Amino acid sequence: MSKKEPVILITNDDGITAPGIRALVNAVRGLGRIVVVAPDSPQSGMGHAITIGQPLRLNRVDVFEGVESWQCSGTPADCVKLARDKVLHALPDLCLSGINHGPNHSINVIYSGTMSAAMEAAIEGIPSAGFSLFDFGFDADFSIASSVVRDVVERMLAQPLPQHMLLNVNIPKVSAADYKGLKLCRQARARWQEQFDHRKDPRGKDYYWMVGKFINMDEGHDTDVEALSQGYASLVPVTIDFTDRHNMEWLSREWSL
Amino acid sequence: MSKKEPVILITNDDGITAPGIRALVNAVRGLGRIVVVAPDSPQSGMGHAITIGQPLRLNRVDVFEGVESWQCSGTPADCVKLARDKVLHALPDLCLSGINHGPNHSINVIYSGTMSAAMEAAIEGIPSAGFSLFDFGFDADFSIASSVVRDVVERMLAQPLPQHMLLNVNIPKVSAADYKGLKLCRQARARWQEQFDHRKDPRGKDYYWMVGKFINMDEGHDTDVEALSQGYASLVPVTIDFTDRHNMEWLSREWSL
Repeated sequence: MSKKEPVILITNDDGITAPGIRALVNAVRGLGRIVVVAPDSPQSGMGHAITIGQPLRLNRVDVFEGVESWQCSGTPADCVKLARDKVLHALPDLCLSGINHGPNHSINVIYSGTMSAAMEAAIEGIPSAGFSLFDFGFDADFSIASSVVRDVVERMLAQPLPQHMLLNVNIPKVSAADYKGLKLCRQARARWQEQFDHRKDPRGKDYYWMVGKFINMDEGHDTDVEALSQGYASLVPVTIDFTDRHNMEWLSREWSL
Repeated sequence: MSKKEPVILITNDDGITAPGIRALVNAVRGLGRIVVVAPDSPQSGMGHAITIGQPLRLNRVDVFEGVESWQCSGTPADCVKLARDKVLHALPDLCLSGINHGPNHSINVIYSGTMSAAMEAAIEGIPSAGFSLFDFGFDADFSIASSVVRDVVERMLAQPLPQHMLLNVNIPKVSAADYKGLKLCRQARARWQEQFDHRKDPRGKDYYWMVGKFINMDEGHDTDVEALSQGYASLVPVTIDFTDRHNMEWLSREWSL
């Protein structure tokens, strides 16, 4: 073999000790040189946060057999940045994030630490994907998710993705018999409606817990939410260019700009 | 006047005591009922982080003369969510974020707490805009920025924006004589290249400070970076649908999906 072994950077947002990242590491064993740089604690809901106001810790750990691993005190996006500069000293060939415990379909792409790591990689020009399983349990069954990961990563390695595009892959919680396959989708139009749980602390001061209800406002048949409900794994290509090109014309016309 | 006074929610990411949010409040006085719900401390680089792992504090404060104001222990996105549920008990007519001390052009839309607040509002269907001044100083001159804010907000109030679109407005650091006006732009293709500053703590343990260098990879004449460099204020319409529609066809064809 004259071809160099690809370097696969793996991270997540549930932390380096979560079952989901172990499933991800195991799913891609043999496809390249795997290096893990992941948060030392859960980072769910961190969106695309980066740590600029305080220093970061980065420590070598022994978590996955035969796989170079580091834990970082920062966010998922920090992990990708630190990995490039201080661990790999180069861009990896691929960056994979997950497998998240819980879905990151539709609007969750904005809130998700899992997706922010993949997005950070895409900004740097690294082909990347985030994987999420529609099951919040610690004991979730990652077997279908693992085969989806393997399939997607083999495709990513076989042929370069368009630059600065990343993939948002969500896997349904279904039995192998009910799993329908991988489906190309668009992000469903949806939102979270929060009703904060208001409490008093022991000193009588108010505090609030965020409690959200997911609302799908999209009746389209080509969305990730719809695909998952039917037993498909959804694959949404995601851009890092947030310019609203459609409404650019509207502004140009209506605001005379 | 039979028309109801519009409710204008104001927030930021530099914290409720920053000069920029005071400039924003003063710029829109008289245009509606202003309510401020802003972080109690700086939240720069928080991206679209939300606080789900710990409770939030929300306290009434007296910071702006004649303006109902609340400070919140959470992120800018948390502020918008809490404002709707616990302060306004309804959607505001407009949500404005800023004025940020420092630019949020190009890829910074992803990292910016200022923009995440506006984005959260857009998800909820509230017309919204983020404003940022290309000047990091505490003593920055907000006079041009204030007139840009006033102009943009009057346009937003005169005619409803397309739903779920938000505006990213950046104002250059120039004298009034050199200011060229408002320009409709697209997000420049750019990234931050980090080189972490490696240090040892007093116990001999490693730690790292994130230090980034901004790299503009875009030579287009229609970008926000270019407009700012020429003395224009840039206005980029931003979408909350991150689906990469252009590359959807590529995936459909090349991956047979």
